Amino acid sequence: MNANFDGIFSGKRALVTGGLGFIGSHLARRLVHLGADVSIVDNLDPSTGANRFNIAGIEERVHLTIADVNDRKQMAALLKGQHFLFRLAAQTSHVGSLRHPMKDVEANAVAQLSILEFCRKHNPEIRIVFAGTRQVYGRPQRLPVSEDHPLAPVDYNGVSKLAGDLYHVVSHQIYGLWTTVLRLTNVYGPHMRIKDARQMFVGWWFHQMLDGGELQVYGDGQQVRDLNYVGDVVDAFLLCAAHPSAQGQVYNLGAEPIRLLDLARLMIEINGSGTYKLVPFPEERERIDIGDYYGDFSKIRAQLNWQPTIPLHKGIEQTLDFYRRYREHYL
Amino acid sequence: MNANFDGIFSGKRALVTGGLGFIGSHLARRLVHLGADVSIVDNLDPSTGANRFNIAGIEERVHLTIADVNDRKQMAALLKGQHFLFRLAAQTSHVGSLRHPMKDVEANAVAQLSILEFCRKHNPEIRIVFAGTRQVYGRPQRLPVSEDHPLAPVDYNGVSKLAGDLYHVVSHQIYGLWTTVLRLTNVYGPHMRIKDARQMFVGWWFHQMLDGGELQVYGDGQQVRDLNYVGDVVDAFLLCAAHPSAQGQVYNLGAEPIRLLDLARLMIEINGSGTYKLVPFPEERERIDIGDYYGDFSKIRAQLNWQPTIPLHKGIEQTLDFYRRYREHYL
Repeated sequence: MNANFDGIFSGKRALVTGGLGFIGSHLARRLVHLGADVSIVDNLDPSTGANRFNIAGIEERVHLTIADVNDRKQMAALLKGQHFLFRLAAQTSHVGSLRHPMKDVEANAVAQLSILEFCRKHNPEIRIVFAGTRQVYGRPQRLPVSEDHPLAPVDYNGVSKLAGDLYHVVSHQIYGLWTTVLRLTNVYGPHMRIKDARQMFVGWWFHQMLDGGELQVYGDGQQVRDLNYVGDVVDAFLLCAAHPSAQGQVYNLGAEPIRLLDLARLMIEINGSGTYKLVPFPEERERIDIGDYYGDFSKIRAQLNWQPTIPLHKGIEQTLDFYRRYREHYL
Repeated sequence: MNANFDGIFSGKRALVTGGLGFIGSHLARRLVHLGADVSIVDNLDPSTGANRFNIAGIEERVHLTIADVNDRKQMAALLKGQHFLFRLAAQTSHVGSLRHPMKDVEANAVAQLSILEFCRKHNPEIRIVFAGTRQVYGRPQRLPVSEDHPLAPVDYNGVSKLAGDLYHVVSHQIYGLWTTVLRLTNVYGPHMRIKDARQMFVGWWFHQMLDGGELQVYGDGQQVRDLNYVGDVVDAFLLCAAHPSAQGQVYNLGAEPIRLLDLARLMIEINGSGTYKLVPFPEERERIDIGDYYGDFSKIRAQLNWQPTIPLHKGIEQTLDFYRRYREHYL
């Protein structure tokens, strides 16, 4: 991506919620390099991807607050005077949302609305980019999935995230707040949680690659998914914050589709070793599995000139390199 | 409606949340007459349609608890041993949701999920019918609006109600809970709030009819709406609780469409006096107005044999009669 952000972020204040996490930490780094005055808020919840090592090297150049985005007092203080707000803090575990549903609705719906209300009253010029999710679409009725696909989440997490997503859309329509929703598909790359399968199965696969373990592929492995490299996703966040035409919009990201079995084989090939095995779906996973998915990103390509730039094999290579170097910080 | 509920509700325990309100109180009355052991929970919030007079005559035959549905302890005690749960308690004011959005999300999303979670754990056989709303569809993209119309609420209330609605759908899909969502359009009849326009414009119009005031019709009055008489809506709730095929379903209600100007004229004609006036939309209303709406109720007609039975002129007549007799309890 050769987007030119000259003067857009330089000298401006940007707050990244979930900034110690996977995508948030990459975004914070990019903003620092673009000359922004960056603040991070993160609750360091052990069930998320939050990891202090994710900001190694920029610790001195960001303002870090350990707090929960549900803490209205702290958030009010942090939001004052910000030009940009990137909202990456969320409860993202689907299975986790079924175990702790009340925590899920608080983080993904209530906190989202509360922050929008604060911005409307005290910082109405702030530009907000919200990390949404493909889960709002549920089981695809057609492929690739575009923004006008029916909204039919299959788990509590998807419902709560949908509410958070739509609060952003409505706040633009009613109050003219600058909000953009990016509905993310699978994202992978350095900084992702790999110690377990909690955040995403691919993280767990990277872990197995490092440890010489076996990649477990659910079902027959023919399920189709698309994966975006984290650097490309960060580009999308920045483009949404930079371009006036992104105001009030919802965009899907997406990438070339690949079958999970082929993905496992590709990772093993790039790694130079490893094995995989087809295993039956765990019951709790099967109930909320969505079948095949890949996103139609033609809208963001047409409006903001975004498209994935890192091919899968290169992204996997870079990710493996990263974890080989820094594994002790992630395992 | 000649639905036969013999033996379905008789001797069974039913809890009606919002049971002092407009629809809830009618439902409680019908359940009492069907021989059910009826409990009501209501917070008597002055901004809702709650009114103790709504249960005049059945006070001794229902168990009434004044509590908020957000009060988890009270709700847990009330839900134990119930066979049926009718969920009418909600923040329904659209403009109100913009003034008190946090209260709105708590009542319409958080409390809904909390009660579903309790039922799943402690009363998984309970049959739940949830009062949803046409607001989840937003501005109609086609008419009449069927259940597969895009979900695009235009205000915070619509988003929160959508979350509550979808939590019910998901809880059936994942846990097999007996949940049915009825997406209501405008409902009118005796017991509705008429002292102001807070709950619905038609309530305010009935007030004007009684007081010899002027009906204010927004814009050019050509907006199309459909109105269900409350007795028909109560039938729909009972059918959903009675029929196994309603499990996990979402149904729209609906009626013959009418233009608001024609509705005003019809009310004046039936009343025998009165005037109307076209007035510009108040700004706060215009931002969230949805244009024309009428619901496609062919799904519930086909599956549960429901359809409106009270024609508009008759319903208006009965409603005016009621308020002429009992106006002191509502004004």
